[in-house]
Amino acid sequence: MIEEKGILFILSGPSGVGKGTVRKSLFDKDTDLKYSISMTTRPPREGEVDGVDYFFKTKEEFEDMIENNKMIEYAHYVGNYYGTPKDYVQKQLDNGNDVFLEIEVQGALQVKENFPEGVFVFLIPPSLEELKDRIISRGTETEEKVRNRLAAAKEEIEMMDYYDYVVVNDQIDTAVQTVQSIVRSEHCKRERVAIQYKKALERDES
Amino acid sequence: MIEEKGILFILSGPSGVGKGTVRKSLFDKDTDLKYSISMTTRPPREGEVDGVDYFFKTKEEFEDMIENNKMIEYAHYVGNYYGTPKDYVQKQLDNGNDVFLEIEVQGALQVKENFPEGVFVFLIPPSLEELKDRIISRGTETEEKVRNRLAAAKEEIEMMDYYDYVVVNDQIDTAVQTVQSIVRSEHCKRERVAIQYKKALERDES
Repeated sequence: MIEEKGILFILSGPSGVGKGTVRKSLFDKDTDLKYSISMTTRPPREGEVDGVDYFFKTKEEFEDMIENNKMIEYAHYVGNYYGTPKDYVQKQLDNGNDVFLEIEVQGALQVKENFPEGVFVFLIPPSLEELKDRIISRGTETEEKVRNRLAAAKEEIEMMDYYDYVVVNDQIDTAVQTVQSIVRSEHCKRERVAIQYKKALERDES
Repeated sequence: MIEEKGILFILSGPSGVGKGTVRKSLFDKDTDLKYSISMTTRPPREGEVDGVDYFFKTKEEFEDMIENNKMIEYAHYVGNYYGTPKDYVQKQLDNGNDVFLEIEVQGALQVKENFPEGVFVFLIPPSLEELKDRIISRGTETEEKVRNRLAAAKEEIEMMDYYDYVVVNDQIDTAVQTVQSIVRSEHCKRERVAIQYKKALERDES
């Protein structure tokens, strides 16, 4: 049997763009995707289960993992650590499961460094689209306002450069379908498929 | 308005794999795609319309176009030329239409040379999949037969290297959906989207 490895998909984008909503809707539709379980030092809340909601660790354990380069990404937030353990993700991928990571832009950049073979999807708000239209048409707004928006848009565009795909979140259903298309087509990328075939043939010859 | 350029998609694969069936089913579902109209020197049959079924040309006109590098690909077959005119494809792309080219492997390689920015999809038969399974399991066939199949599979795999995607045509509906996913996700590629945004912003500044 040829074991196809899973793919790590990273969904990110500016805050407020609706990453969580898209991710939830995607998981309702696609049960094959594994959502990456985060690791944290904050104590479990009632009903939270270790290894399901989070991996709960002590501060010492977490810092040990950081030091040993065992985190794909992490952040310190209101006195606690949050992050994605490398081992868990790698195990899922090795088992042929796709892993889906929904994460803030800053965390996504860390993932890009530690896991460049991931597929990075940038979700942008439709307001940027609108802004784009406004910018190129003759504007009726004050020059300063246009300039500020332009600056913000540019910052977002620079973030884009780290990503493989850009999806406009105008309608959740459409955005989810587009992300599903990306998942599907990434599995047909020649690099991935050809490697499998070649491995299969080599195995026969040896 | 930002005009998004169309994308040239090339569907190819070994003969008999079902390229035509997949293409027809795709066009039934997706009316936005433009099927590339071929150019030929063979005389029109009854009911065939110039510019709809084919672009009909004389031998001299066709050879003139070959000489002036105006064909994306062409072949000589039973005394007549057949090929894809560059101008027609480029005009469709400039108008924002995706163009879909279903073509034999030899023609696809010509397209690759003349239009490397196209998206190349390789359709493979499920029998190659089966073969692959057979090769890695203990075979009951004669050694020679296995060796011949292996050789054929290898030739096909080498062709794969020129392509961006590999789609297994096990079920037509599934294959068509996969091709649709590829079309959709290619439009979200960051390189394409980012260029549009950057152009829009530059236009505003100038």
